[in-house]
Amino acid sequence: MNPGKKITIKDIAKKSGLSAGTVDRVLHNRGEVSEKSKAKIRKTLEELHYEPNLIASSLSAKKTYLFITLIPSYNPGDYWEEVDKGIDRVMAEIAKFNVFVEKRYFNQFDAQSFFSAIDDLENAECNGVIFSPILRDKSLIFTARMKQRQIPVVFIDSQIDNADFLAYFGQPSFQSGYVGAKTLMLQVKDNQNVLLFRTLRKGFIGANQTLQRQEGFLSYLSEYRPNVSVINIELQAGNPDLNELLMRQAFDVRNNVGAAVIFNSTAYNIADFLERNDIQNVVLLGYDSLERNVHYLKQGQISVLISQRPEYQSYNAIKAMFNYVVLKQPVNHINYMPIDLLYKENVDFYTHYKQY
Amino acid sequence: MNPGKKITIKDIAKKSGLSAGTVDRVLHNRGEVSEKSKAKIRKTLEELHYEPNLIASSLSAKKTYLFITLIPSYNPGDYWEEVDKGIDRVMAEIAKFNVFVEKRYFNQFDAQSFFSAIDDLENAECNGVIFSPILRDKSLIFTARMKQRQIPVVFIDSQIDNADFLAYFGQPSFQSGYVGAKTLMLQVKDNQNVLLFRTLRKGFIGANQTLQRQEGFLSYLSEYRPNVSVINIELQAGNPDLNELLMRQAFDVRNNVGAAVIFNSTAYNIADFLERNDIQNVVLLGYDSLERNVHYLKQGQISVLISQRPEYQSYNAIKAMFNYVVLKQPVNHINYMPIDLLYKENVDFYTHYKQY
Repeated sequence: MNPGKKITIKDIAKKSGLSAGTVDRVLHNRGEVSEKSKAKIRKTLEELHYEPNLIASSLSAKKTYLFITLIPSYNPGDYWEEVDKGIDRVMAEIAKFNVFVEKRYFNQFDAQSFFSAIDDLENAECNGVIFSPILRDKSLIFTARMKQRQIPVVFIDSQIDNADFLAYFGQPSFQSGYVGAKTLMLQVKDNQNVLLFRTLRKGFIGANQTLQRQEGFLSYLSEYRPNVSVINIELQAGNPDLNELLMRQAFDVRNNVGAAVIFNSTAYNIADFLERNDIQNVVLLGYDSLERNVHYLKQGQISVLISQRPEYQSYNAIKAMFNYVVLKQPVNHINYMPIDLLYKENVDFYTHYKQY
Repeated sequence: MNPGKKITIKDIAKKSGLSAGTVDRVLHNRGEVSEKSKAKIRKTLEELHYEPNLIASSLSAKKTYLFITLIPSYNPGDYWEEVDKGIDRVMAEIAKFNVFVEKRYFNQFDAQSFFSAIDDLENAECNGVIFSPILRDKSLIFTARMKQRQIPVVFIDSQIDNADFLAYFGQPSFQSGYVGAKTLMLQVKDNQNVLLFRTLRKGFIGANQTLQRQEGFLSYLSEYRPNVSVINIELQAGNPDLNELLMRQAFDVRNNVGAAVIFNSTAYNIADFLERNDIQNVVLLGYDSLERNVHYLKQGQISVLISQRPEYQSYNAIKAMFNYVVLKQPVNHINYMPIDLLYKENVDFYTHYKQY
């Protein structure tokens, strides 16, 4: 592209070998055009780095759109705060195109709170829903209902197979457990044991995502380190006294512990235990670069963190919804986030990085 | 922010506790405002996720800007192709604001080509220069000259201390060598040796960046693995026969090689040698996720790759120039890219990831 040169319909017609009328019909989504011609024009647009003239069309159309997001509520420093930041950032960017976002929340420790939020959403007037489908059955019914209403649904953070969703944005969970095992086990001997922590929440079956991470982790062990033994410990959400006792038993020297892992974002609790009890020779794998986790990564109690760019899960999810609903562009169905590996030596450059 | 609500000067004044007139002067960069008030307003803008109304101002102003980029020319699949992609992407985004980018190239294997390109740039009419300062002295003279002309200069990929640049976008090189050593040495025993490959280019002193990576690597070894020995091998750019001979000598069994590293993007050459000679028990660290490197990472000849999001180096650099020149916003001086660690188990999710 030369400086000063704008791409015209004529340019596109010339390069694609089609008529200006056909190009115009495709760009404005009207009239009938063969799939073959559409594909040709799409290819040409890509080659020319064409962007539809959003400004002109948004200023002339005056149509407004509303998307609704539904994610867990959170305390400062929690995982979901980052997801919420991504929503804020995209809101600021798309408001000028008359596209608005209404943010809703539920209590992730209370199934009933999720059920009510979903019931409200079923009848809400909007052009798209972006949400975290934390409970499978309710989410399946919801997406079916939204399909009837022709309102697209985008999943973030966890995915439900066989549901009618437009797109999913989140980590490839099985693989993130598998990679976690690889990085952790580089530092563990065959005669040492691995502690595998889970957190049980009342009235909830385990989150799909952490279960898949666990499967990936165990799959790596059985493939590459079959001689290593795993000891399972079930912590209970909201019961710190019990958990303290369970950790004390688990890290007993007689257990010959070489490593520990927890698949949700609360590795900082285990790290805190290791620090208070001055336990030095255990390598700990955790998930998500929360400030509290990063603190213990830098201090050495956490050995490696796996992160998944939570801010971009929501940012990309809403941008995809925008592209689909407003710009009528196709959207990828499954959009995996990268599996980012953080040691104390590279974590700062990851968390301080600012995308322009 | 509620749906449908636009942020007004009144909102900002109310929240910051300053007058609407003061807010207006700051937003439009005119008149005198105390640093304290400016800071207050900047903080308020951040809290409100304020974006200046780019559309209105670009449509009304009709002013055009030209930035010039200067990077090495490349073959398909080379490192610099990714940097160039980032330039293309940002060009497509900012053209609608009447900001254009002229792309220039030099031959990185010919110092004279860099000198001439810089000479041409010194007198070019433009509003900003984004370039890779591959040779120190010439780049220092150039930035001083541009400072006289009041044209801002942004460095990408490598940095020159004491030069007058607006901003730098690239990897923290020392630290990326240091982290590389950590990941590599997890797989190497104390009685094994490490091959450290360099590539000499005629008429060039070593690139600043690879030298710094090497320093970081050796610093980690002397700190944590003082018993491991390093064997240095100097390959020659453009002399494959000699290099084949040097690699044959280096990987001789009598050298008891446990690991190898090369700090530029050509690990694939060493991986290719390992594959052809069926050498299995050497772990190899390379830099940059070129397709050829990723190929050998997946096959197993390369054990770990460190990547640095080259597309975002140029993308962010030009966006920063845009923010500074067009929007009159302050810009961070040093902008380090993350140090991304890639194993065969997570590389696909990294290279296939698409930022919306």
